Amino acid sequence: MPANRPCGVWAPAITPFRQNLSPDPERFARHARWLLANGCSGLAAFGTNSEANSLDAQERMELLSYLVEHGVSADRLMPGTGCCALTDSVRLTSHAVRLGCAGVLMLPPFYYKGVSDEGLFRNFAEVIERVADARLRMYIYHIPPVAQVSISIPLIERLLKSYPGTVAGLKDSSGDWNNTKAVLDAFAGSGFDVFAGSEVFLLRNMRNHGVGCISATANVNPAAIHHAYENWQSDGAASLQGGITATRAVIQKYPMIPALKAIVARAFDDPCWATVRPPLVELNAQQRASLAADLDAHSFELSATDKHR
Amino acid sequence: MPANRPCGVWAPAITPFRQNLSPDPERFARHARWLLANGCSGLAAFGTNSEANSLDAQERMELLSYLVEHGVSADRLMPGTGCCALTDSVRLTSHAVRLGCAGVLMLPPFYYKGVSDEGLFRNFAEVIERVADARLRMYIYHIPPVAQVSISIPLIERLLKSYPGTVAGLKDSSGDWNNTKAVLDAFAGSGFDVFAGSEVFLLRNMRNHGVGCISATANVNPAAIHHAYENWQSDGAASLQGGITATRAVIQKYPMIPALKAIVARAFDDPCWATVRPPLVELNAQQRASLAADLDAHSFELSATDKHR
Repeated sequence: MPANRPCGVWAPAITPFRQNLSPDPERFARHARWLLANGCSGLAAFGTNSEANSLDAQERMELLSYLVEHGVSADRLMPGTGCCALTDSVRLTSHAVRLGCAGVLMLPPFYYKGVSDEGLFRNFAEVIERVADARLRMYIYHIPPVAQVSISIPLIERLLKSYPGTVAGLKDSSGDWNNTKAVLDAFAGSGFDVFAGSEVFLLRNMRNHGVGCISATANVNPAAIHHAYENWQSDGAASLQGGITATRAVIQKYPMIPALKAIVARAFDDPCWATVRPPLVELNAQQRASLAADLDAHSFELSATDKHR
Repeated sequence: MPANRPCGVWAPAITPFRQNLSPDPERFARHARWLLANGCSGLAAFGTNSEANSLDAQERMELLSYLVEHGVSADRLMPGTGCCALTDSVRLTSHAVRLGCAGVLMLPPFYYKGVSDEGLFRNFAEVIERVADARLRMYIYHIPPVAQVSISIPLIERLLKSYPGTVAGLKDSSGDWNNTKAVLDAFAGSGFDVFAGSEVFLLRNMRNHGVGCISATANVNPAAIHHAYENWQSDGAASLQGGITATRAVIQKYPMIPALKAIVARAFDDPCWATVRPPLVELNAQQRASLAADLDAHSFELSATDKHR
């Protein structure tokens, strides 16, 4: 694996909105820099947990450019660029490549259901052909619980064969370790890098030649997840894994995106962070109090001395 | 019901693509005019069967403007304008209202699953508030088999109460007559117009105070469906319903969108119509031949003398 290939802990950085629901680039960049300073190797901006699919293409491009212009190195970015419309996917992917991003994380087009591998292959192939840039590194995003459109192993095989080097890996957010294991067994070590979609699978992923995780909760627990990643070969690995798994279990009792935003709002004393775009709804006061109590009981806190800035 | 409210048979007009997958406005307008001349009361352009979700916002607005500038009266148009991103939905809806469209057909945001009625309410309400135009007539689009996000009766009730006059109706593509019946029982006659999402339910919908259907197969069978609609109170209504249901059953044996395009390509001797955008795949030669044979056996033909023009 070349030294500059993405690996480690990447966060699908949550996207801050102002009261009027417009994206807030300044808060976004502050959070991005904080994540990179606190354990994240990089940012999968515009992932599911970024509410990316509640942003339009122009908003996504403007936010990405803002990050790069405000202290976030493009080689630490793997923005989500897969949309329902081929032309949007091409536009976002081209933009990311021009900025010099380490890679892009590509959802399949997710409106039409029951589509064939042939149709999905054509979608990804068409994006690659139209972007037509040797710098493109495409990570396929498998998240059937949300997208309801799956990435099969034969599809990966066909993409890898047609576009070796460009098709660079996969994020598996199936929540199904057997699927991650099957992908690892088939492709790990062949220039195809597998990120677990949750830190719950971090240790197993590393032991099976995966390269790290891209996980929602890295937005609020980056240091501990990074520590588990760094020490996956140590004697204490299982215990470190147990710790981050337990933290995730606490957060996961709540709707994930509003919960992450509530935690950030509380930790950085910045209530504006709680805002989500419809169709999501922020945690109510009772949920916020309950989440805070659960996390306190778990002795969870964000690094107190290292605030957003 | 005011005379100018949409009713009857509306087609989610299929969208033609050139070989390079760009939309073809000229072919689109020809098909639109043909549909209106052959039984459709209007066009729900950019519906599911229009591959709307494979088009970007700009493409949709350009195609819609082209129709209005090329012989399609805006009061015959109910374009789909519901997107995952609130800002896209607002942009498309404002554009349609400015053009003078009879209404818009609004999908809920469909990426995030398991969202609450509160979140969906906020989405539709925010679109209405931002468009801020008394001319807006919003028809909610319930298509859980594809969107995987449902419109509940309490949600409709809340929307109607908050935005009477603006929230104008619903297209029910659940495929579940019990759901359509429940919506009709709750709201028909209160200024809320229900379109069946398939002509299979046309007669039942009319008998329960619905206003018509918006159906994929109206793209290729508009005259017969219109005839059934016009005569729903006649003695022959059940027989007319049987005829259009049987035709749909033949077409439905194939993937719907590629099949519709294959039928139009064949009827108008214009192979370009067969092109679909990924993730869809056009029918292969064997499927095309089989579909043609099935339709011939069923004595189905598009009006031979009234070609696209």
